[in-house]
Amino acid sequence: MNNDRRFGLKRHITLPGELALDGGSLLTGIEIAYETYGHLNADASNAILICHPLTADQFAASDHPITGKPGWWSRMIGKGKPIDPERYCIICSNVLGSCLGSTGPSSFMPGTETPYAMNFPVITIRDMVRAQAKLLDYLGIRQLKAVIGGSMGGMQALEWASTYPDRVKSVVIIASTARHSAQNIAFHEVGRQAIMADPKWRQGNYYEEKDPPVAGLAVARMAAHITYLSESGLTARFGRRLQSRQEKSFGFDADFQIESYLRHQGIRFVERFDANSYLYITRATDYFDLAEEHGGKLANAFRGTKSRFCVISFDSDWLYPTSESRVIVHALNAAGAAVSFMELSNPNGHDSFLLDAPDLHRTVHGFLEGDRA
Amino acid sequence: MNNDRRFGLKRHITLPGELALDGGSLLTGIEIAYETYGHLNADASNAILICHPLTADQFAASDHPITGKPGWWSRMIGKGKPIDPERYCIICSNVLGSCLGSTGPSSFMPGTETPYAMNFPVITIRDMVRAQAKLLDYLGIRQLKAVIGGSMGGMQALEWASTYPDRVKSVVIIASTARHSAQNIAFHEVGRQAIMADPKWRQGNYYEEKDPPVAGLAVARMAAHITYLSESGLTARFGRRLQSRQEKSFGFDADFQIESYLRHQGIRFVERFDANSYLYITRATDYFDLAEEHGGKLANAFRGTKSRFCVISFDSDWLYPTSESRVIVHALNAAGAAVSFMELSNPNGHDSFLLDAPDLHRTVHGFLEGDRA
Repeated sequence: MNNDRRFGLKRHITLPGELALDGGSLLTGIEIAYETYGHLNADASNAILICHPLTADQFAASDHPITGKPGWWSRMIGKGKPIDPERYCIICSNVLGSCLGSTGPSSFMPGTETPYAMNFPVITIRDMVRAQAKLLDYLGIRQLKAVIGGSMGGMQALEWASTYPDRVKSVVIIASTARHSAQNIAFHEVGRQAIMADPKWRQGNYYEEKDPPVAGLAVARMAAHITYLSESGLTARFGRRLQSRQEKSFGFDADFQIESYLRHQGIRFVERFDANSYLYITRATDYFDLAEEHGGKLANAFRGTKSRFCVISFDSDWLYPTSESRVIVHALNAAGAAVSFMELSNPNGHDSFLLDAPDLHRTVHGFLEGDRA
Repeated sequence: MNNDRRFGLKRHITLPGELALDGGSLLTGIEIAYETYGHLNADASNAILICHPLTADQFAASDHPITGKPGWWSRMIGKGKPIDPERYCIICSNVLGSCLGSTGPSSFMPGTETPYAMNFPVITIRDMVRAQAKLLDYLGIRQLKAVIGGSMGGMQALEWASTYPDRVKSVVIIASTARHSAQNIAFHEVGRQAIMADPKWRQGNYYEEKDPPVAGLAVARMAAHITYLSESGLTARFGRRLQSRQEKSFGFDADFQIESYLRHQGIRFVERFDANSYLYITRATDYFDLAEEHGGKLANAFRGTKSRFCVISFDSDWLYPTSESRVIVHALNAAGAAVSFMELSNPNGHDSFLLDAPDLHRTVHGFLEGDRA
């Protein structure tokens, strides 16, 4: 599936050697698809790694090859924007387990033309980061000027700081958490069950039939999408407003605008995302618990770090609320790290970091500038 | 389906005449299944109507005929409890559209042996209440000492106060709202889409095959169930604790206790509930907007009321948060109604009203006692 370059990928490598995964297995022939913006300077000191959220991809600041839409973070990355390709070499790679060119369940197993499907090993956030580190090795980048991520991207940024402390000068963690809560896991589990309940899922073996479990995946997306928005944001944007009809239909069509919007989100999503990848990547986030990897004490994850940290939360984010960011900040303080923390006010819930958020953009810009002193 | 009395119903009537529904159609031959606890006194002045929440039923204080579990409000109703059958005649009827004996989509259309399925008309909360009023007519109860309901039961209690102000002396509204918000609708829409995405739903015509869309209905229940619990309650009860295994499985079994719990909720639910009823009843709650029925002004719903009101919310309820109760209280104040309002502290989210909540029980008891003065 991915191997046929159908996405018109600009950049794509096969990692040399093998990758030992947290789950105990070895992956070989790992392909990583990535995009870059800007140029690496002579001493390779201007590289910034962007870690993408759950269902995003490497097209952070370039048009998406399937949807044709602008990059998911094109508000943040671009000329004259906080992360400027005229100054930085910006790298964004599709995470291991995903479906936009990097190895995942829809990829062929090495030496075969059979997709992994559910034979793909369960991976962790740390496994994703290890693959990214190998990509940087290949690109000749020893140390990142910064690693920056929102949501699941923030989890990767935390893992970078913990696993490769000498390779990250600065770390920006936005709308994220150091561990998935019971409620976070619960929402993901609903999504996974929706996919697995779809008979077209076929225990994951739907690739040959080219008839994927789009209905289940759409329901999973709809459930998740509610958690990305705030109650007040939904009320402001949709409230109880009806669709074009002025009257309720007394039927089961999408009467309310919010219904139509959610259905649309589900339908659009299945065009660009693989159901099995959704299973694996949600599992990776549910498994994420940085403290657990360090003897149950989050501060241990950052002992001796020389990185600078910037932690940002949004007041209307109920998926990873400010309290989760505070846990990270307290641990960083306990580890003696240099950390700045900001809770930003924004009505758009968890998705604030992807939307028009001038104070987020100012904060990230200021933090990156602060490193030049 | 319902007509065969398979539930061993104690009480069951066919309403005389027809019922004109808000959606414009007429229903005839409506059956209402109900339970009573205690005896009606000579002047029929001690009747209390209990309105049940979304997926509950008439078995408020008696064992459930399918699950064998104690009544869903047996903490509230019983000898020596706040609503005491030694003093009151307590009535609880299965709502119109449901599946425990009252007419709903699984019922045969009058004069046929064909279930309504999706030919059942879309009903409203007010339609449910109109059917209850006809039941009370049959029972010879002109005026209720009290109508009491939590969640969707609270919506019915509000409709009672608005539609039949002379028939309710006291109204108790617990953990409820006067209108469904965009987020409320969104969660219900996910559930409906999960059911309709299940190929076994067959456009609602699954009764003959006796092979209902249990997978979709279970996913719907799982998504809804998350909204019934608080984040902190989930963390306290489950956190990230693993199932019996001490290690993560690096697979897709239920590793975390919260996953196993949610799956269990889904599986148990489909044994006792009809998928089409779930569609219709969630639709009724989404349509509910008491202000809209009264020219857009909620206070108009209560103009001239002589009923006493008690409004109760829980601080950890994020489905119908305290702010929704305040909207009701403000409207009641604006209408000059006698109203007492209490926000109770309880870690169990929306479901608090069904669980061990001594201060809820005290409040309801005190409010009912207050009427005797």
